[in-house]
Amino acid sequence: MWRRSKHACLRATQFAKLLFSPHLADSSYLHISTGLHLPALLSADVQSTCDAGESTGIRIVSGVYMNWKRPLNQQFWKHWQRGLATSPGATKVFRDPRFAKLEESDVQHFQEIVGDKGVIVDSSELEVANTDWMNKYHGQSQLLLRPQTTQQVAEILKFCNSRCLAVVPQGGNTGLVGGSVPVFDEIILNLGAMKSILSFDEVSGILVCEAGCILENLDTFVGTKGFTMPLDLGAKGSCQIGGNVSTNAGGLRLLRYGSLHGNVLGLEVVLANGTVVDMLGTLRKDNTGYDLKQLFIGGEGTLGVVTKVSILTPPKLASTNVAFLACEDYESCQNALKEAKKQLGEILSAFEFIDRPALDMALCHLEGTRDPLPSKHNFYLLVETTGSNEAHDKEKLDAFLEAGMELGYFVDGTVAQDSTQAGSFWEIREGISEALVKAGAVYKYDLSVPIKSFYRIVEDLRAQLGNAAVVVAYGHLGDGNVHLNVSAPKYDEQLLAKIEPFVYEWTAACKGSVSAEHGLGFMKPHALHYSKSEEAIHLMEGFKKLLDPKGILNPYKVLPACAATSTCFVSV
Amino acid sequence: MWRRSKHACLRATQFAKLLFSPHLADSSYLHISTGLHLPALLSADVQSTCDAGESTGIRIVSGVYMNWKRPLNQQFWKHWQRGLATSPGATKVFRDPRFAKLEESDVQHFQEIVGDKGVIVDSSELEVANTDWMNKYHGQSQLLLRPQTTQQVAEILKFCNSRCLAVVPQGGNTGLVGGSVPVFDEIILNLGAMKSILSFDEVSGILVCEAGCILENLDTFVGTKGFTMPLDLGAKGSCQIGGNVSTNAGGLRLLRYGSLHGNVLGLEVVLANGTVVDMLGTLRKDNTGYDLKQLFIGGEGTLGVVTKVSILTPPKLASTNVAFLACEDYESCQNALKEAKKQLGEILSAFEFIDRPALDMALCHLEGTRDPLPSKHNFYLLVETTGSNEAHDKEKLDAFLEAGMELGYFVDGTVAQDSTQAGSFWEIREGISEALVKAGAVYKYDLSVPIKSFYRIVEDLRAQLGNAAVVVAYGHLGDGNVHLNVSAPKYDEQLLAKIEPFVYEWTAACKGSVSAEHGLGFMKPHALHYSKSEEAIHLMEGFKKLLDPKGILNPYKVLPACAATSTCFVSV
Repeated sequence: MWRRSKHACLRATQFAKLLFSPHLADSSYLHISTGLHLPALLSADVQSTCDAGESTGIRIVSGVYMNWKRPLNQQFWKHWQRGLATSPGATKVFRDPRFAKLEESDVQHFQEIVGDKGVIVDSSELEVANTDWMNKYHGQSQLLLRPQTTQQVAEILKFCNSRCLAVVPQGGNTGLVGGSVPVFDEIILNLGAMKSILSFDEVSGILVCEAGCILENLDTFVGTKGFTMPLDLGAKGSCQIGGNVSTNAGGLRLLRYGSLHGNVLGLEVVLANGTVVDMLGTLRKDNTGYDLKQLFIGGEGTLGVVTKVSILTPPKLASTNVAFLACEDYESCQNALKEAKKQLGEILSAFEFIDRPALDMALCHLEGTRDPLPSKHNFYLLVETTGSNEAHDKEKLDAFLEAGMELGYFVDGTVAQDSTQAGSFWEIREGISEALVKAGAVYKYDLSVPIKSFYRIVEDLRAQLGNAAVVVAYGHLGDGNVHLNVSAPKYDEQLLAKIEPFVYEWTAACKGSVSAEHGLGFMKPHALHYSKSEEAIHLMEGFKKLLDPKGILNPYKVLPACAATSTCFVSV
Repeated sequence: MWRRSKHACLRATQFAKLLFSPHLADSSYLHISTGLHLPALLSADVQSTCDAGESTGIRIVSGVYMNWKRPLNQQFWKHWQRGLATSPGATKVFRDPRFAKLEESDVQHFQEIVGDKGVIVDSSELEVANTDWMNKYHGQSQLLLRPQTTQQVAEILKFCNSRCLAVVPQGGNTGLVGGSVPVFDEIILNLGAMKSILSFDEVSGILVCEAGCILENLDTFVGTKGFTMPLDLGAKGSCQIGGNVSTNAGGLRLLRYGSLHGNVLGLEVVLANGTVVDMLGTLRKDNTGYDLKQLFIGGEGTLGVVTKVSILTPPKLASTNVAFLACEDYESCQNALKEAKKQLGEILSAFEFIDRPALDMALCHLEGTRDPLPSKHNFYLLVETTGSNEAHDKEKLDAFLEAGMELGYFVDGTVAQDSTQAGSFWEIREGISEALVKAGAVYKYDLSVPIKSFYRIVEDLRAQLGNAAVVVAYGHLGDGNVHLNVSAPKYDEQLLAKIEPFVYEWTAACKGSVSAEHGLGFMKPHALHYSKSEEAIHLMEGFKKLLDPKGILNPYKVLPACAATSTCFVSV
């Protein structure tokens, strides 16, 4: 019944005994990673001991509250967690009783901070903010706050921290792992009203703005100055720069301009206790002390709330070319990448991969899309160049295309004749995610794997699932980042049990990442150990504890065992 | 007598009373940033209460031990520090009595860990390792350890932590701020024997190696595979990749390839207590939890010891051009940079600045160097391009040179005809630092400032110093990073008092960084507050406390107040 370790042989009856011991009133919290084989027991008994009303509608994923004074030693605990984490199936998370419940007097206090307009209690507005983009995660927050200044954010958090009210920071709410919606009744702290551009240096290209600025608006703004944002992603019309930073968004330009860890020059962050930390440097080089801002890049709002961003934007180059190419096998896609690096060198700006089922998804569910090529093929590549000299770029691209055709890497292909056609190629690539949502339920996996293994996991998952669902793959081949999707008519626990932990174990076996660019959010804390060592996770817990001792910031997310409680934090 | 704040009006007599109270035997530690106006008092009395022998030969910079049970409130303490920090002049640092002294039994224990060959007690070898590259800082370590494996590093640190023996990690010892030499009797942990290349992926260009690998050797190795290291600096023949990472070395290619925060993909680090943290990912994208490795990049060995590095190396491009250009005024240098970004776009790989006094230093003190141009000018630019197509690059460079000449930005210039000539131009730029050391005493400042202020600080410092010394400037104009040097026949406190805090205050006023790429080391902890907010410094202290509670790793460095003691750590 319990797998992976002899220590994990605690039986259901013993577990129940522990669970329902006289200490139950105590609020100590155990967060069980996943895969608990006790669904019947839990749904019948444990749930009844908790605030069942508040867990309704939540897809129960990762943990139960219980009273357990750690009667077993650390070794047991460790192995037990591991054992659980590898068992298939879904488990439960219940509201952390340490968090206070919102009272009328709290709402009044927030009104004093942000004014009436900044306090949203309207149910239809709340429903939108409680629901993620995939319509997969549904929170039950009764309050959304929309501060306009850093000072207001600081006052809100200071108060929430003192009252032990949990908070979920929210940007454009375009995340794919349930990180930006409440799990229970967390207060939604929406940064959308903080959308001012604060400065732009036209010599260095350094932009300083508030966290709520929409990515596309920023790109348009810096575009008028001859620059471009160093990141671009499908959600650019809605996602906010603060959210981009907090999730360390990767996207389409990472191959060329690198990650936000290199491009973000400074941040202003508000900590859980309301302290404003000004790290808003505008310098390309600054080695004065530890580079603290890095922890908040990809911190998913669990360590602090990003309120301002300073970012280096590269010059917008005059010439862009986009080619849509067809390959018959994955080996050819890999060879084409090597050839592109060789022939296109410094002008290569994107090297995207789409398999045929992914293209079919887009063609079937996105209005106005059509196959760029006359016949069907197994694989497609979207190759983009950007450079400063049109003639030079064209010459380089021609050399690449000629070499690739001669060597048999591509069997067909077309180069966009104008920006409209280039846009239509990109719409296919960027629209696949939306198409999948339209197609029904989708299990999304965002993996980094060695390039040679990039497509093998897709084939192996197809073999594992048989006809139970459609497996669709696309992604950033140049970065080794595959978006592996399982599309099915509806969410189904049996199907999920076939996918997980299969996908995670496969990824771990090739030392890949179970989340290349999407983050962990609410979906994947239990999978963290597949990509990070025990010691590293332990350190993460230490940082969380240091920065947010009460755990009020985005609870139930990112860290598997300890995101929401101080009782299981341990010193380094 | 005390400046900056009414709280800072503690008189010398009161101070002395506190200092010599009956609690003196207590080992609590107060680290005073700098500029204490009590040199006479301290040298006569305080010093005699400390282990005077051990401070001999140490340039006394930043702090005194004393017994002080914080009788004054936090507000006072804060202001007092600030007040002190802005006063000119040097103060003292004494050995932290919390650290144990090395005993014969310790040496025997280390022999068991690393064998006889790994334990160095020879005085001539120790003298070299105790002295920094500038011959400015001199430690008195009696022991150097040369581990060969991560496991040995872990065992050494575990033992040192348990015994409270202080440790200074050392790579190539080429740093410029005294960060890699002992201040007192810290054990030197030299990583030089850990120099294996562990793996290289010829598709992705990802290199994994041990920390002791010399940068130039790595560049040669990846060069044979068609790649290049993303960083290059004058010390490349001696500096080690572990040290590069620990100091977040910038260098000559940062303009093109960005900082190590973007290029380092993974690290293996040993914490103070001997825990090995495996964060040695080889993935371009990995958003699974907090990006912990970032804290160790630029942590200067105070948070952990880097033992292995995974780094992304870019393809080595076929064509390189180097131009040496002369400008008559700084305005023209700036305009030339803008023009270079426009005309050279994606092939611009370095844009270096040298003023005439800097060139003169190189010509005077470096054997075999000669002025690349026939007549003298005020400013010089070294512009490098690297690209994949020689003809394209040449065309772009010609267009840039033509435009720059026509617009009057350059008055003369020459393009290297071959790699030997290109090398001779680079030798001048890279040799200035060495030339300055040969010329006598040198006060080095490594500043990031807005590009428009890049040369104004040089002029202002010249005005401030008059004929007292030669002010020399060079640096990475493309990154806004100026190396400001004051050359004098010998180190002199009066001269120093004219330079500091002048340079730091000037830099702070334009929101610059007092250490762009060199780090803080032992030289600049007291200047940290010029570039970082109080809240940020407070957080840094929290991280230090979390990772190295006993403060054994590279004490007396980086953090101004708390690097060496737990008593002044405060919770966030």
